[in-house]
Amino acid sequence: MSKLWQKTINVNELVENFTVGRDREFDRQMAAFDVLGSLAHTKMLQTIGLMGEDDLALVQAELKSIYREIQDDDFEIEQGVEDVHSQVELLLTRRIGEAGKKIHSGRSRNDQVLVDLKLFFRSELQQVVEEVEQLFNLLISLSNKHKDVLLPGYTHLQVAMPSSFGLWFGAYAESLADDLELVLAAYKITNKNPLGSAAGYGSSFPLNRTLTTQLLGFDALNYNVVYAQMGRGKTERIIAQALSAVAATLARMAMDQTLYLSQNFAFVSYPENLTTGSSIMPHKKNPDVWEIMRGKCNRLQALPNDVAMMTTNLPSGYHREMQLLKELLFPAFAELKSCLHMANFMLQHIEVKSNILDDARYAYLFSVEEVNRQVLNGVPFRDAYKQVGLAIEQGNFNPDKAISHTHEGSIGNLGNPQIEAAMQAVLAQFKFERTANAVEQLVK
Amino acid sequence: MSKLWQKTINVNELVENFTVGRDREFDRQMAAFDVLGSLAHTKMLQTIGLMGEDDLALVQAELKSIYREIQDDDFEIEQGVEDVHSQVELLLTRRIGEAGKKIHSGRSRNDQVLVDLKLFFRSELQQVVEEVEQLFNLLISLSNKHKDVLLPGYTHLQVAMPSSFGLWFGAYAESLADDLELVLAAYKITNKNPLGSAAGYGSSFPLNRTLTTQLLGFDALNYNVVYAQMGRGKTERIIAQALSAVAATLARMAMDQTLYLSQNFAFVSYPENLTTGSSIMPHKKNPDVWEIMRGKCNRLQALPNDVAMMTTNLPSGYHREMQLLKELLFPAFAELKSCLHMANFMLQHIEVKSNILDDARYAYLFSVEEVNRQVLNGVPFRDAYKQVGLAIEQGNFNPDKAISHTHEGSIGNLGNPQIEAAMQAVLAQFKFERTANAVEQLVK
Amino acid sequence: MSKLWQKTINVNELVENFTVGRDREFDRQMAAFDVLGSLAHTKMLQTIGLMGEDDLALVQAELKSIYREIQDDDFEIEQGVEDVHSQVELLLTRRIGEAGKKIHSGRSRNDQVLVDLKLFFRSELQQVVEEVEQLFNLLISLSNKHKDVLLPGYTHLQVAMPSSFGLWFGAYAESLADDLELVLAAYKITNKNPLGSAAGYGSSFPLNRTLTTQLLGFDALNYNVVYAQMGRGKTERIIAQALSAVAATLARMAMDQTLYLSQNFAFVSYPENLTTGSSIMPHKKNPDVWEIMRGKCNRLQALPNDVAMMTTNLPSGYHREMQLLKELLFPAFAELKSCLHMANFMLQHIEVKSNILDDARYAYLFSVEEVNRQVLNGVPFRDAYKQVGLAIEQGNFNPDKAISHTHEGSIGNLGNPQIEAAMQAVLAQFKFERTANAVEQLVK
Amino acid sequence: MSKLWQKTINVNELVENFTVGRDREFDRQMAAFDVLGSLAHTKMLQTIGLMGEDDLALVQAELKSIYREIQDDDFEIEQGVEDVHSQVELLLTRRIGEAGKKIHSGRSRNDQVLVDLKLFFRSELQQVVEEVEQLFNLLISLSNKHKDVLLPGYTHLQVAMPSSFGLWFGAYAESLADDLELVLAAYKITNKNPLGSAAGYGSSFPLNRTLTTQLLGFDALNYNVVYAQMGRGKTERIIAQALSAVAATLARMAMDQTLYLSQNFAFVSYPENLTTGSSIMPHKKNPDVWEIMRGKCNRLQALPNDVAMMTTNLPSGYHREMQLLKELLFPAFAELKSCLHMANFMLQHIEVKSNILDDARYAYLFSVEEVNRQVLNGVPFRDAYKQVGLAIEQGNFNPDKAISHTHEGSIGNLGNPQIEAAMQAVLAQFKFERTANAVEQLVK
Repeated sequence: MSKLWQKTINVNELVENFTVGRDREFDRQMAAFDVLGSLAHTKMLQTIGLMGEDDLALVQAELKSIYREIQDDDFEIEQGVEDVHSQVELLLTRRIGEAGKKIHSGRSRNDQVLVDLKLFFRSELQQVVEEVEQLFNLLISLSNKHKDVLLPGYTHLQVAMPSSFGLWFGAYAESLADDLELVLAAYKITNKNPLGSAAGYGSSFPLNRTLTTQLLGFDALNYNVVYAQMGRGKTERIIAQALSAVAATLARMAMDQTLYLSQNFAFVSYPENLTTGSSIMPHKKNPDVWEIMRGKCNRLQALPNDVAMMTTNLPSGYHREMQLLKELLFPAFAELKSCLHMANFMLQHIEVKSNILDDARYAYLFSVEEVNRQVLNGVPFRDAYKQVGLAIEQGNFNPDKAISHTHEGSIGNLGNPQIEAAMQAVLAQFKFERTANAVEQLVK
Repeated sequence: MSKLWQKTINVNELVENFTVGRDREFDRQMAAFDVLGSLAHTKMLQTIGLMGEDDLALVQAELKSIYREIQDDDFEIEQGVEDVHSQVELLLTRRIGEAGKKIHSGRSRNDQVLVDLKLFFRSELQQVVEEVEQLFNLLISLSNKHKDVLLPGYTHLQVAMPSSFGLWFGAYAESLADDLELVLAAYKITNKNPLGSAAGYGSSFPLNRTLTTQLLGFDALNYNVVYAQMGRGKTERIIAQALSAVAATLARMAMDQTLYLSQNFAFVSYPENLTTGSSIMPHKKNPDVWEIMRGKCNRLQALPNDVAMMTTNLPSGYHREMQLLKELLFPAFAELKSCLHMANFMLQHIEVKSNILDDARYAYLFSVEEVNRQVLNGVPFRDAYKQVGLAIEQGNFNPDKAISHTHEGSIGNLGNPQIEAAMQAVLAQFKFERTANAVEQLVK
Repeated sequence: MSKLWQKTINVNELVENFTVGRDREFDRQMAAFDVLGSLAHTKMLQTIGLMGEDDLALVQAELKSIYREIQDDDFEIEQGVEDVHSQVELLLTRRIGEAGKKIHSGRSRNDQVLVDLKLFFRSELQQVVEEVEQLFNLLISLSNKHKDVLLPGYTHLQVAMPSSFGLWFGAYAESLADDLELVLAAYKITNKNPLGSAAGYGSSFPLNRTLTTQLLGFDALNYNVVYAQMGRGKTERIIAQALSAVAATLARMAMDQTLYLSQNFAFVSYPENLTTGSSIMPHKKNPDVWEIMRGKCNRLQALPNDVAMMTTNLPSGYHREMQLLKELLFPAFAELKSCLHMANFMLQHIEVKSNILDDARYAYLFSVEEVNRQVLNGVPFRDAYKQVGLAIEQGNFNPDKAISHTHEGSIGNLGNPQIEAAMQAVLAQFKFERTANAVEQLVK
Repeated sequence: MSKLWQKTINVNELVENFTVGRDREFDRQMAAFDVLGSLAHTKMLQTIGLMGEDDLALVQAELKSIYREIQDDDFEIEQGVEDVHSQVELLLTRRIGEAGKKIHSGRSRNDQVLVDLKLFFRSELQQVVEEVEQLFNLLISLSNKHKDVLLPGYTHLQVAMPSSFGLWFGAYAESLADDLELVLAAYKITNKNPLGSAAGYGSSFPLNRTLTTQLLGFDALNYNVVYAQMGRGKTERIIAQALSAVAATLARMAMDQTLYLSQNFAFVSYPENLTTGSSIMPHKKNPDVWEIMRGKCNRLQALPNDVAMMTTNLPSGYHREMQLLKELLFPAFAELKSCLHMANFMLQHIEVKSNILDDARYAYLFSVEEVNRQVLNGVPFRDAYKQVGLAIEQGNFNPDKAISHTHEGSIGNLGNPQIEAAMQAVLAQFKFERTANAVEQLVK
């Protein structure tokens, strides 16, 4: 199929292959969003007199058919077709003739890709948020369930103070809630309309960008058209940062899991069919899932830097390599979602050891507790401290291992309801429903 | 001065020097915030019976004196004193005796540092936001002032479409407004109270963390104490990402500036005393400020990765190297603020060339314009396109260089008021005043 | 197919899919090297009495058949087979029965993968070096060919001094020669034998690791078995650094190309079918190949950091996520080779503009030349400087544009023969032939 | 002091402060090398007639005085003097008058800085190599000393196979030997002469660059002058990669140390005055040195990325921000050297636990050993495997804990002499003596 910009001289095949690369593979994932963009754009074109009502009706009906075909996985980018935009146009013109070609009026390939990416990213971010919410809920319920099971707490990897599974699970829940602040920032930056920016310098057509903004359920416009184009690369970098925040939380949890599963800690366990082992090393329960998750999440932690390295010091305006960012971002969403899903799956099967603190090596965990107890009973701090130190030195330190922590966020008062409320407060700001309604209107 | 944890055996001097490093230098910057933390903490201690009213009165009065001394730059960490916390305690006990030692009750060094860092970061983020706002305002005014001066717009670094200085300045203004979304996310994550988390596992004292949260003007608590400690490293990473967003915008602008100042573009100019040159190369106006800014901002773009590399795969719980993050973050704030300040300063003196598009090499900029004009006059797109192509080929393409772009965010309709409104909407969410009021209450 | 470590309980399918991931896809690329490893290992096993001569003969013959099948692309990892090692064993046992199972004696999966990776990386590095050498040769010939065509030389992106295409092409040639020092370091670290390290702690079998080292053409052993395992991740990181060095050179060249192709420089050109354009913007020659190359190479520049982020802070010993490094490294080789190939292809077609310096904006390029000329004629520097400055100020500076640079590496004395000699000196140290001979012996 | 390029209009003070930054602080470290460069350059100038013999004698004598003053720390960059080059010139002209100004003939600031940096980096790399060698020697001696003390070996952080302190120490020794390959590559790229490249485009003076190469003890020239300038940023990036290799080895060792010091492993110990602790937590031996080392080394692991981010996508030619790379590289050398030094210091005091494997949790370590033993006694592998598995299942697995590993690099045959030989082979290639001789000649 011929390209819009094509001159009589064909582009060399080597050049073609090198520059197109894996683009078609990724474009397939944007297909539904490309159709959404065209549905909104053509409705707008009609209002400004650049498309007739009859053409609009034809185009809208057929675009909706294609949308359904994409949803039913009955869509592919044909051999020889460069990208998803060309494929959609090809299908349209095959089916409704000349009218199909008009969907490009008042648009350039640049803003068409921009809007496709924004719609795709928006949808993926929503899925990430939904997976995070499920994992959060599980962590809270594990925290509540195991709130009375004690763990050693470490500083410098040295046994330090009593902790609990309630604290440990809850900490990761609260971490996810905070991570969503970054995802929210990325979502807000993403959910703005670049359509109408054309090649990054706007158009002499009297486009109504406010209308397409409403039709596509965007929160607002990327107003300045030069900025709209500048969003390419920037949006990806900021989304990558948001994903990396969630990934960092998972990676830390995965590191804890591999340690706690080691025979040297033995704090948690999993059913045999969720680990790998060896019949002559029956003790081995290799935490492969957590290791792979740690690796994938650390890979995601490096992602923002990859995006930055590819875009740093490029002057403003479009550059072709921006297309390569799809290779970085698209798999990243899939990876993070699968990590969130697997964390959820594994944690549903986690087995928590009890009586861990009975082990002698954890005895001194309670020394600070004991000092504090005496202080609360009126003994001056220095005296209490000296007395406990002496007892330890003389080998007759027998701590009372009952824990009575009462302040907000402590072993005895986890604060999970407050953490859940904080999570809900962040979630509410995404307003996914409003966006979903707009999309539904467009395709119905 | 002896350390709280010190045993009879002194720590080796080599070890001491290696581990303390540049910490005292950075701690000086946190001094005022350390006092704020102690002011709030001791007020709370009194409410739960861990400090008497008389002691509280003594301590509060003296802490306020120290606070004023710090503000007056009449404060230093003395030789042999390990950190700012020890220095403040030392001053207190020198002046009011035993009561001064009680400020550590119910706290560990860990949560004391955490709260100091949060208060410091909060203050620095506010300064960054204020610098961003000023630069934003200048960019908007430059955009408005030069809205009619045209520039070539580039894609692939190839001359492509007409642009304008209005668009160019405005794009960077809008970019800053979006960047603040990330700064806001970082601010929200920062502005939560870790005090009371002790060594990361809470305390057996009946602390009232809600009270210190209010006194210090935090938005909320880091509830879970394990999570509060987990915030070390995470807060730094996310703040670094926020700073990197602003830095990326500045770096891109700096790159444009160095290009536009090159003799091969010659779009902008600066007074001689803001550039460097040579008397035998009178044409040279080296854009040193923009180059240094580009370098500093690209350094900042790598910062989040530095933080991640230092914290990745550390199990949960405190690790000593977290202290080193100060060496990364503290100078980063100073660097970014000075870059914002210098960008502001330079842009106040920018001279914009007019009539750039008169140069023959920019003639074809108007070819798409011409096609669109004909389409708007009723000529079918393909005919218009063919006709313009033919005119160009035959060398008689004489475009009308008047630009009439009317849609939102285009050359003729920059949308600056909307961009300003968007900026105000983000700024309003920081609620700096509420925090300032809390601080004022504490120290008055 | 059952796994060696498999217990009666099957591993959960979700776990299986998550942990195996894309491993089979990458393992296919290691197939030939896996067979090489087994050819050497089994020969050694026979010498220490762990494999009979008859079994050895059977195994060697069949492994060579499989090797040829792999070379003929008549090999695949079957559905349900976990990895390439299992596939080779499966084929062997199908064809020669029990003897096939013995190839694993005295090996663990860990050192088998290690040796496969080393052999694969070694082969890929050789291909990279060969591509670099070809590009180097082309750059030298272009430098020689265009040695008299002058260019403006820039500092601070400001027109500064006369340069030439001879210098420009030659600079990138010399850069590649230096880059190979890093590739050589990576090659030397790679080309050491890890076989015999078993799971990273050695074996109680009396293995002859020196023998397999010779058979496989390695330069030496990774002696210490714990270090051999520690090489996983480290080898990948160092190779990534070597690739990044070459990539950095290509990326810089690509950046120059996109600038020089811009209408604002117009120093070079390409045939139309190697660029993309538009029929109504006939001036546009989008340098897509160079932009994509810049993007791919900048991606490669971030690669070492990705590897570091995934391996940092892992304690010594094998961790499952090391497998994920294949996803990073394997495509990186392919990318870099294709970039080198395309750079070569494009440069074969580069068209160099002559008389560039006739343009008035480059007039002052010669001011320093003029000062130096006078100095060489005996005029004191300060006088010469003042006189030239005055001439410029008065508008009567008419420089002699003939360039007479004679020192080593200058416009008139490029030093290309010396650069070629330096390149040959590095190339000679790889000793690819010795390795090729060893491999040939093994499979013949 | 006036600047060479200075026009009548002074550069704005804000601009001056922002662009000069911390440059004077770093320049002080280059002072001796700046003098070396001038000693060689002026000798060469005399041979090509650009400096008279009398002037040369004056200049050489005074430069040598200044060199001694720098060595005696009797040198500073005065207030108002921009950089080290200006300071040296100032001292010269104060003392010997006009002749002092001639040291700049035939040089530009650009190649003067380049040669200073190369000489400084060369010297720093040598110091790093010397520190590495000392640490290597200590590790080898520790490996030999503790070769019979067994440790559990881990895979997936699960107890897997017997290891030993001999292996553990030796592994890090061998790792350092491999790391030096990268340092060698960086050294070779560094140790080439850029002097004579002027502003990156060479000079019309008949410089003898071969002569300065010999005088300064460089291995060779950066021939092509454009490439010589391109080395700025590239040299730094590659050196950073070399430093990161050593740092990665130290960081992994530090991670092992913090784990092994944890009560949950308790494999090693240190005297009390090398750790920090608490009198009421007498078990705590916080490994602060190793944690800080891990942090500093991970910071160094991120360094190459920082350099890349600051230089990526800059077109060829000098850019001012290259100066900022000093802020990254200079402290990095100091940090790495202090980490190497502290690792050496700490390891001199390490205490190794014996009888670790008596703990019941390590019983199954020997299951593979037992299978292998039976195989070596003629039992078919599958039978041996089944029998051991059964014994374990029935609870009567009583392994013989004597280890008899004999192959190269195993517990019983560490291969330390071979590793030492490999180290010597790398060290020999640096040829530090030749360089030292050249420098000695210059200053005597």
